[in-house]
Amino acid sequence: MMLRPAVTVLMLIWLIGGHWVSNAQAKADREKLLSEPGVYGTFAVFALNNEEWAKQDPATRIVRLTSLKGVVEQHREHVAIDLYLLRGLSDQGDLLFRIHAAELRETQEFLLDLKSSQFGKHLKTVGIMHGLTKQPNYVPGFPDQMKADLETISEPGQKPYAIVIPIRKSAEWWGLDQEKRAAMMQEHTAATLPYVKTVKRKLYHSSGLDDPDFITYFETSRLEDFHSLVLSLEKVQEFRYVRRFGHPIILGTVKSLDEIVELLAQ
Amino acid sequence: MMLRPAVTVLMLIWLIGGHWVSNAQAKADREKLLSEPGVYGTFAVFALNNEEWAKQDPATRIVRLTSLKGVVEQHREHVAIDLYLLRGLSDQGDLLFRIHAAELRETQEFLLDLKSSQFGKHLKTVGIMHGLTKQPNYVPGFPDQMKADLETISEPGQKPYAIVIPIRKSAEWWGLDQEKRAAMMQEHTAATLPYVKTVKRKLYHSSGLDDPDFITYFETSRLEDFHSLVLSLEKVQEFRYVRRFGHPIILGTVKSLDEIVELLAQ
Amino acid sequence: MMLRPAVTVLMLIWLIGGHWVSNAQAKADREKLLSEPGVYGTFAVFALNNEEWAKQDPATRIVRLTSLKGVVEQHREHVAIDLYLLRGLSDQGDLLFRIHAAELRETQEFLLDLKSSQFGKHLKTVGIMHGLTKQPNYVPGFPDQMKADLETISEPGQKPYAIVIPIRKSAEWWGLDQEKRAAMMQEHTAATLPYVKTVKRKLYHSSGLDDPDFITYFETSRLEDFHSLVLSLEKVQEFRYVRRFGHPIILGTVKSLDEIVELLAQ
Amino acid sequence: MMLRPAVTVLMLIWLIGGHWVSNAQAKADREKLLSEPGVYGTFAVFALNNEEWAKQDPATRIVRLTSLKGVVEQHREHVAIDLYLLRGLSDQGDLLFRIHAAELRETQEFLLDLKSSQFGKHLKTVGIMHGLTKQPNYVPGFPDQMKADLETISEPGQKPYAIVIPIRKSAEWWGLDQEKRAAMMQEHTAATLPYVKTVKRKLYHSSGLDDPDFITYFETSRLEDFHSLVLSLEKVQEFRYVRRFGHPIILGTVKSLDEIVELLAQ
Amino acid sequence: MMLRPAVTVLMLIWLIGGHWVSNAQAKADREKLLSEPGVYGTFAVFALNNEEWAKQDPATRIVRLTSLKGVVEQHREHVAIDLYLLRGLSDQGDLLFRIHAAELRETQEFLLDLKSSQFGKHLKTVGIMHGLTKQPNYVPGFPDQMKADLETISEPGQKPYAIVIPIRKSAEWWGLDQEKRAAMMQEHTAATLPYVKTVKRKLYHSSGLDDPDFITYFETSRLEDFHSLVLSLEKVQEFRYVRRFGHPIILGTVKSLDEIVELLAQ
Repeated sequence: MMLRPAVTVLMLIWLIGGHWVSNAQAKADREKLLSEPGVYGTFAVFALNNEEWAKQDPATRIVRLTSLKGVVEQHREHVAIDLYLLRGLSDQGDLLFRIHAAELRETQEFLLDLKSSQFGKHLKTVGIMHGLTKQPNYVPGFPDQMKADLETISEPGQKPYAIVIPIRKSAEWWGLDQEKRAAMMQEHTAATLPYVKTVKRKLYHSSGLDDPDFITYFETSRLEDFHSLVLSLEKVQEFRYVRRFGHPIILGTVKSLDEIVELLAQ
Repeated sequence: MMLRPAVTVLMLIWLIGGHWVSNAQAKADREKLLSEPGVYGTFAVFALNNEEWAKQDPATRIVRLTSLKGVVEQHREHVAIDLYLLRGLSDQGDLLFRIHAAELRETQEFLLDLKSSQFGKHLKTVGIMHGLTKQPNYVPGFPDQMKADLETISEPGQKPYAIVIPIRKSAEWWGLDQEKRAAMMQEHTAATLPYVKTVKRKLYHSSGLDDPDFITYFETSRLEDFHSLVLSLEKVQEFRYVRRFGHPIILGTVKSLDEIVELLAQ
Repeated sequence: MMLRPAVTVLMLIWLIGGHWVSNAQAKADREKLLSEPGVYGTFAVFALNNEEWAKQDPATRIVRLTSLKGVVEQHREHVAIDLYLLRGLSDQGDLLFRIHAAELRETQEFLLDLKSSQFGKHLKTVGIMHGLTKQPNYVPGFPDQMKADLETISEPGQKPYAIVIPIRKSAEWWGLDQEKRAAMMQEHTAATLPYVKTVKRKLYHSSGLDDPDFITYFETSRLEDFHSLVLSLEKVQEFRYVRRFGHPIILGTVKSLDEIVELLAQ
Repeated sequence: MMLRPAVTVLMLIWLIGGHWVSNAQAKADREKLLSEPGVYGTFAVFALNNEEWAKQDPATRIVRLTSLKGVVEQHREHVAIDLYLLRGLSDQGDLLFRIHAAELRETQEFLLDLKSSQFGKHLKTVGIMHGLTKQPNYVPGFPDQMKADLETISEPGQKPYAIVIPIRKSAEWWGLDQEKRAAMMQEHTAATLPYVKTVKRKLYHSSGLDDPDFITYFETSRLEDFHSLVLSLEKVQEFRYVRRFGHPIILGTVKSLDEIVELLAQ
Repeated sequence: MMLRPAVTVLMLIWLIGGHWVSNAQAKADREKLLSEPGVYGTFAVFALNNEEWAKQDPATRIVRLTSLKGVVEQHREHVAIDLYLLRGLSDQGDLLFRIHAAELRETQEFLLDLKSSQFGKHLKTVGIMHGLTKQPNYVPGFPDQMKADLETISEPGQKPYAIVIPIRKSAEWWGLDQEKRAAMMQEHTAATLPYVKTVKRKLYHSSGLDDPDFITYFETSRLEDFHSLVLSLEKVQEFRYVRRFGHPIILGTVKSLDEIVELLAQ
């Protein structure tokens, strides 16, 4: 019942802020961006200037959040945008945007418009990381059973938690021949199999695009499983070649644009 | 006698700010959260914007502190909240909240409400760390005498000091087999036995949830014993596998919500 | 069509802000600065004070951007100035200036005038790095085929992305004799050949002028090729002697002065 | 003669700000705190908000400095407080308080009152470190001549410079047996003997209380001797087990409360 | 011609701001401070609060810069003060003061007066480092020819660029015996001989006074020679014992007080 006024606010924003897109086409594009190789994934963390935001009266906040909604809706035709609430779980910032695009220029255009929007002037850019989705490197050489296990469909239902872990490998790792690396990645992958159902994973390759070599992204409803998964990964041989793991680990909850708007309207 | 006006302030807040909960049920839940495995522990450090806070007149401060009281009381039904005063002992921040919850989402909801409260806009989030309570890993294999010693009840009476030390183990540690790690943890545990009575310990597992592997939490009335305990732990073999110890170590004093309110009302 | 008003703004600035130079001579000088050895290259990253900038009314912004245009045009007679938009792609800052000059004093004079300008007071200096262009160290000893391959002309057309990577080698590297270093640099260079057509490279020597030993600069329209190039470089033996690679990697898009002005006028 | 107006200011403050303590008792307690083992030493560095402070008119400054004097005088009954001026010598901050107390709670109470005072709102806490005085670990096993040399009384007269150096030892150090550590500490101590007369030293044990293992405190009127002392310590075997030395080294001048007040009143 | 108004400003300041010293005596003292061993050298980097400074009207700026001139002139009787412009070349700050004094207290007094001056409240202290000039350690054992080469007088004429590089040696270095260090320093010195004429060097010993072991100071009109010099030094064996080199390297241009005043008056 505490949510009632906010819901009203939300409906107002919905009425004021509509930049409508062809939902069917946008959905199809989004599916492609989220599943295909050769797509750029950007993780952008923002902090909300809390003191300034708290000073705004409710009407001003609604106007500003409407600008957020507008910018996101407008760009959703070209890029896939996911939102996460970091506040209360991460000291890195308040909001995380995950953006998938065929070209980083499109991501830049979205973030420029976001920053120039009425809402954007309350945001401080805390961190931006980029990666690229690619065909799996080592999986083709894995045993058939392992390949089948990796294709296990994760349990249906919402996975409210998302975790982002940047990883950098040592020069020694890259100096190993492909065969040795493949053997270690097979051991690494075996360690992840017990968690295929409850922890969704997605890998982005970052070398050159950013300081990490990889950005690993996870979704789960069972954080304890996720903890056990990471613990298993720390115990395999490949982990000795990891020079940076997290630092920071970014933990948040998956939210829809409307949920974020509602939360910030309060 | 210097405290008199503050005590009056406190009573005022008490009268204005009551969000009452069923104390008996809340206490039972709190006991469970503080003792069982599978519970998430969050350590959230905040800095108070001192210059802004000092500018508020006493009545405004009381209103804002009442909002703090309200938020804490409201969420105490679901999460266990402990408060610590860091100011004057730590350069990390002014206040530490330790929050135990069955789900991190509940912790997030509390911290969101705290941040949105009248008091929360004076707070800057300095650091948030998460861990998970688990069944002990190595204790089952320890000698019976050691198990018994570990169950020694700590001396009754207040333990005013609390210390939080995040720990990260090296990849080499995780690469050792369970037996070797168990032997070293037995030596580690033996070193702690002389301090079981005067230093209370609690362990949180963090791998994946945050950058450290563990968060260790201590309470004591005898800081000199605590120092001796840490010195003993630095001398065992296991310590060679510790890559991060503290950095920062967070030292504060255990305070009730009312004591914090009283202190900040001045 | 969204650009229309901005284009008008741009024309206004063009009319107000002209400090005209002899374009032919300036162009010739620019070519020399961009191609010859013994030239100093400076990479200066600035953050725009977004909150302050957003508060300015459009007319004030135009006046301020005119001052930016004026300063750049005035110094273009002596130094070669390239602009990049980092905002939306890098958390390092909003704007990158790459400045080539025969003497660092000339670069300093430009940046002093920039900072003193009406626009400059909105800029915060985030980072400045210097390097020097030199005759290639190792190329003279490479096989003729490799030399020929290195001279392959890159594909025509715009290369919208620019990446700057500072590099520091270990003391061990510098302690190796020239022959060993040359052999490893030949392996390094061989790894780059598949990307000569799509990724333009430029090398600046920094030892003593700044903390890195080298600043490597890249332009490409295919970020995926650039990622593959870096991945190839991580796999050669020379990479084991790299102590710092990026940290940060700076990624932005190549923009003309007019494009930057137009973007910021909005 | 430049000091005249400030001296008058000082006398005014003296008249307004007196919280008097029994000087004889306080002096005795202070002597105990400064000489006995089992005492907590806290090093608290503060930065003065210079821009804000410069804006205050002289009368307001006097009122605020009177509050500083009041807080210090009030707590001097329980804790020993020494002041140092860092401004102009250290980039860490402007003021250093060294506080000795039987319990860290008393130190916290003093620093809380300091922060809540009229003067305190101009202070930003830059760093706080804690240590504990203890009976010497290795001295009992040293040769008699060395013990006698260590008891040499330092030259009379003021020692205007104070230096604070936090130190962290490696895990390897703590893993050595007591005998090996004692032998190395004897070599370390021998290196300090030539400077016993001109450089006063005091050691605080920090393991667990803070990130360093030790805080070393020095006073001297001859900084060149102090430099030679540190150079000698860098050359002994024990130094190879030092993982952190300073970082930062804090250098300031010993000042009385009245001198600090006079300086800041200007 | 752009300089005309500033020159007028300068003359005004000259008339208003004079604290005159006996130039002959001051010059003699300055020569001694700059050439003798046992002198303390301090490097103090300041950032000018650009946004605040830009808001001052020209008359106020002149008054403030007059206070800068006054403080410097007043202290030049006791300490040798050199100024450098970092803005536009370094991201560390805007101004560097190099101060030579027989006692660090005198340096502190100057910097206190600078900070308390009308101009000083616009300055933020970014970094302060101290070192001590000493008789050369290793030169007495060098071959006569090398000693003679080291005494080569550097080319006459202005050396507009100044570079400051803090250096920290490893514990291994200090653990080597004097003979081995001397041999390596001879190789190090031989590498510098080709640059004796065009790059002036000065060495300050910092152990204990600050985190680095040495502060190396360079002046040159040929930055390319300076780069080659550093490159040569990276190739000698001694460089393997260097744990910190720069971090940061500070690069600026040598300026007179009047030039600085003129620049900031604009």
